[in-house]
Amino acid sequence: MFLNISIIGSGNVATQLGKAFVNTGTVVTHVVSRNKANATTLAEKLHATACNLSELPRNQLTVICVSDDAIADVIEKLPTDTPTVYTSGSVGIDELPKRERLGVFYPLQTFSKTSEVNISEVPFLLESENTQFLDAIHDFAMQISSSTLIVSSEQRRKIHMAAVWINNFTNHVVHQAQKITQEQDLNYQLLLPLLKETLRKLDNQTAFDAQTGPARRGDSKTIEKHLNAQEGSSKELYQLLTQSIRETYKNEEL
Amino acid sequence: MFLNISIIGSGNVATQLGKAFVNTGTVVTHVVSRNKANATTLAEKLHATACNLSELPRNQLTVICVSDDAIADVIEKLPTDTPTVYTSGSVGIDELPKRERLGVFYPLQTFSKTSEVNISEVPFLLESENTQFLDAIHDFAMQISSSTLIVSSEQRRKIHMAAVWINNFTNHVVHQAQKITQEQDLNYQLLLPLLKETLRKLDNQTAFDAQTGPARRGDSKTIEKHLNAQEGSSKELYQLLTQSIRETYKNEEL
Repeated sequence: MFLNISIIGSGNVATQLGKAFVNTGTVVTHVVSRNKANATTLAEKLHATACNLSELPRNQLTVICVSDDAIADVIEKLPTDTPTVYTSGSVGIDELPKRERLGVFYPLQTFSKTSEVNISEVPFLLESENTQFLDAIHDFAMQISSSTLIVSSEQRRKIHMAAVWINNFTNHVVHQAQKITQEQDLNYQLLLPLLKETLRKLDNQTAFDAQTGPARRGDSKTIEKHLNAQEGSSKELYQLLTQSIRETYKNEEL
Repeated sequence: MFLNISIIGSGNVATQLGKAFVNTGTVVTHVVSRNKANATTLAEKLHATACNLSELPRNQLTVICVSDDAIADVIEKLPTDTPTVYTSGSVGIDELPKRERLGVFYPLQTFSKTSEVNISEVPFLLESENTQFLDAIHDFAMQISSSTLIVSSEQRRKIHMAAVWINNFTNHVVHQAQKITQEQDLNYQLLLPLLKETLRKLDNQTAFDAQTGPARRGDSKTIEKHLNAQEGSSKELYQLLTQSIRETYKNEEL
C-alpha cells in the first residue's frame, strides 16, 4: 500500500486528487509543479512540501497530473525505478517511456480547482503492464472511490472520447440554448429545471429511450420554423443534430 | 379564480398538470380525450368524469393539452365563450381561432406519464390578448408554480427552440456517448457521475464560462484521434460541434 505519495502538477486534477488522498489517510509529502506559486499553494493545502523533480523521494508512488503533452517528459526525468501513475484519458502507455512500475490512474470526471467533487463516486480507470503494480494501484484507487475499472489504453481512449461528448458537447449545446435566452433578455436559469429533469430521466433509462421532440417525431413544421429562426453555426448544428436523431430512429414507426 | 376546471388530452402533459392542479386544491371535473381508455384512466386518477367535448361545462376553465396540430380544431369545437388555455410552446395565439378568453399556459418542462416532476419549480409561460383573463391565468399559474413569466408568442417560440437544444439535443449528445460505452461493452451508467457534475457546474456559471476540453483548448492532436475513431453522423457531429466551439472562443487567447 502507498502510505506516502508525491504529486506532480498543481492544476485542477492535482488539487482535487490531492485533497481526496489526504482525506482518506494518505500522506502527500511532496508537490512539484513548473508553476512554483501554484505548487506552494497546493503543498500548503495538503500539508506537503513544494520541491523540484530531482528532490522527490525515489521510492514512493508519484502521481503525475500534468497536461498530456508533458507526461513523457516528466517520466524521462524521474528515476526509472520510481513507481509512477499518470491521470490522462487519452495518452496510451505504449506512447510513453518503458518503466518497470508505470500505471494509469484516470478519474473519469471534470474538475475545477474550487468546487468539490464527491470523489467516492468518480470512476477510476486503471492500467499497468505490471500485474503486481496494477494490483497495488487498484487497492489504492479503492481507498478513495467505490468505482474502479481496469481497461486497456485503447478502451480508455474511447471512454475519454465519450467523456468529450458527455461533458464538452452537452455543455456547448446548453450554451446554444442560453444564447437564445440571452438574445431574449431572459435569465439563463429559466432553462435549468428542464435541464435537470432531462438528466434525471437518464438515471433510469438510456438516452436512446429517453429521446423526445420534433426530430424524433418527424415534426417538420416545427423544425422548419426553428431553422428559419437561427443562423450560422447554430443553424448548421441544429440541422445536423436533427438529421442525426432522424437517422437514429429511422426504423421506428411514427 | 378557477375552482373547477376541465382538461382536454390524456398524454404526459395532461397527466402531470392534472395531478398538479388536484394537489393544489383545484377540482378537475371533466377529462376529454380522443383515446377513451386513456381519458378514463386519467379521469379516475383525478377523481373526474371522462366525457365528450360537447359535454364539457361551458363556463369553466378548459385546459387544452393536445398535440400542436390538433389545438385549432379543438378550439373550433368549444363554445366561443368558454375560457380556454393551451399548453403548447410553439403555436402562436394568432394562428388560432379568435376567442374572447383564450390564453397560453406553457410549462417549460419535459413530462413523462409516470415520473413525477416538481411542478412548483417549473416555469410557466403565459400569454393572452385579454389582460383581465391574463391576470386570472397568472394567478392560477402561481397556485402551482413559483416561476411564471408573461411572454409573447414570438418569445415563447424562441424559448421552445431553446428547450429543444436543452432537452432533445443534450439527450442525443448523451446518446452518442452511450453508444461508445455500449460498443466497449461497458455500462452506460459509467458516464453518469461526469454528466451530473457537468450539469452541477451550470448552477453557478453559464455554459460559455464552463466550457473545457480539446476543442476549446485547440488540442488538435486529441481531436484528430477522436475523429479517426468515429464514423458516419457521429463523426460529422463531432466535427461540427468542435468547429462551433472553436468559433465561439475564437477571440480567446490560448
